[in-house]
Amino acid sequence: MNITIIGLGLIGGSLAIDLRKNKFATELIGVDSSDENAGQALKIGLVDRIENLEDAVKNADIVIIAIPVDKEVTVLPRVLDLVNSTTTVTDMSSTKRVIIESVKNHPSRKNFVPAHPMSGTENSGPNAALEGLFKGKITILCDQSDSGPQHLALIEKMFQTLGMSIAYMSADEQDHSTAFVSHLPHAAAYALANAVQSKEDRNIIFDLASGGFNSTVRLAKSSGTMWHPIFQQNRNYVVESLDVYIKHLQEFRDCLQNGEDDKLHDLIVNANKIRGILEGENPHLIKNEEKFVKLYTKKT
Amino acid sequence: MNITIIGLGLIGGSLAIDLRKNKFATELIGVDSSDENAGQALKIGLVDRIENLEDAVKNADIVIIAIPVDKEVTVLPRVLDLVNSTTTVTDMSSTKRVIIESVKNHPSRKNFVPAHPMSGTENSGPNAALEGLFKGKITILCDQSDSGPQHLALIEKMFQTLGMSIAYMSADEQDHSTAFVSHLPHAAAYALANAVQSKEDRNIIFDLASGGFNSTVRLAKSSGTMWHPIFQQNRNYVVESLDVYIKHLQEFRDCLQNGEDDKLHDLIVNANKIRGILEGENPHLIKNEEKFVKLYTKKT
Repeated sequence: MNITIIGLGLIGGSLAIDLRKNKFATELIGVDSSDENAGQALKIGLVDRIENLEDAVKNADIVIIAIPVDKEVTVLPRVLDLVNSTTTVTDMSSTKRVIIESVKNHPSRKNFVPAHPMSGTENSGPNAALEGLFKGKITILCDQSDSGPQHLALIEKMFQTLGMSIAYMSADEQDHSTAFVSHLPHAAAYALANAVQSKEDRNIIFDLASGGFNSTVRLAKSSGTMWHPIFQQNRNYVVESLDVYIKHLQEFRDCLQNGEDDKLHDLIVNANKIRGILEGENPHLIKNEEKFVKLYTKKT
Repeated sequence: MNITIIGLGLIGGSLAIDLRKNKFATELIGVDSSDENAGQALKIGLVDRIENLEDAVKNADIVIIAIPVDKEVTVLPRVLDLVNSTTTVTDMSSTKRVIIESVKNHPSRKNFVPAHPMSGTENSGPNAALEGLFKGKITILCDQSDSGPQHLALIEKMFQTLGMSIAYMSADEQDHSTAFVSHLPHAAAYALANAVQSKEDRNIIFDLASGGFNSTVRLAKSSGTMWHPIFQQNRNYVVESLDVYIKHLQEFRDCLQNGEDDKLHDLIVNANKIRGILEGENPHLIKNEEKFVKLYTKKT
């Protein structure tokens, strides 16, 4: 399988490592708008060679787009302009509605399988690529009835070879859920980093920061080049998630301020339930739950 | 050195492991109000034996109190009632003003060295104890001129054998700084867990939660038994930190809502500086910085 990866950063690079290792890819072609990134990716062996967009797309069985979402709305239509009928195109972006809208009426729309693998780190660039980044995680595939069945099947197969589970959602459902479980934590971490920096000097932060602070603020290291456009494309849902979060913070703050100890206790006990949710049984196995079936069964 | 540890949870248990391993302790006596915890700690070899509070304090060279802060304000005066003049008492609590106030006029106040090692995890109980939990971290010692020099020197030595650096602050400075770098992240995580649970069902959270969400929300698993009293004892500073945090979140939200892209960009860039702060050079080595000298030089 000839695979072209457009964007050789953390995500594109990590895909390259695993798709080569599991032999799903026989040849890996890289495309990157940064010559430095492209050179680095070639040097550390992520891809076999670097080509320009046109050549790389024409010779590929699968084209994977792994670039910031503001760039993707320009690049994706160009890629679909270039593909032949057998080429499958997928992407890795954290937002889906705006991306899908950008090729809504494209004659090759059926070649495109919109995907969002839920995995990443706070680092970026080809040197941040990690083996096994996707293993055991989930990929969301969106609006799958708008993709050709052979293209959908191939991309499902690709993510399965990476050790991923697959969830099927509408683009709107994905953008809403992802706002809460991914975009909100990033916004929360950015604001926490700014709040603490506004009150404490860097020496004190450095000295006193322990595992807890590091963990909570980790996502604030994430690149604005990637994250700013995500917030913009998912603006309404991220604002909704921030409103919900601020409401819960304000409630916590008011309970503390007013000495409402029973209520504060209840808030902490409810928050503690997140342990059971995150460490519990895999609800994928609970096939008969209504919500599960609604969201996670293929809509055929 | 005979060491008594009151409270055989994550912190007390982890201390026991390392103080035995580095041979600072020759005998480790445990005290715990829970028979179950005490039995478990004995079973897994954290301590040599369990005694009641009176016996355990009378025979100790060092008494370490590692219990929730609401319990400590009762236990600490009792311990100081029981000590002889050569016994050194220290504690591990995340708040310091209220604790120190509880023994302000105690005739054995000089035996007490108030400490706060900045390390922990979201888990609790003797089985959560970890070897090396404190290594490379910092301990804050508070109001050190109110401790007897020989007691202070012994506790400094103890933390140094654990591989820790020591910062000297007033109790008020410690409570303020700790509110921002430790208590606020916990409150932020509790509120984030509640916000996401209020909007998404547990299956979706489980399925979509990846490393980023897990990291940001991790502290929400922390026990309310320990954390609720910390929030209460440091109420004003935690409320201040929450107000600052909510202000920064609201600013981020408003920029996004209003499409103020340049400002949003600046907020993300400023937040990114936390990487350099957390991963930079150790400012302990920068001896000539005014702030450093102010906070971190012993006040003699």
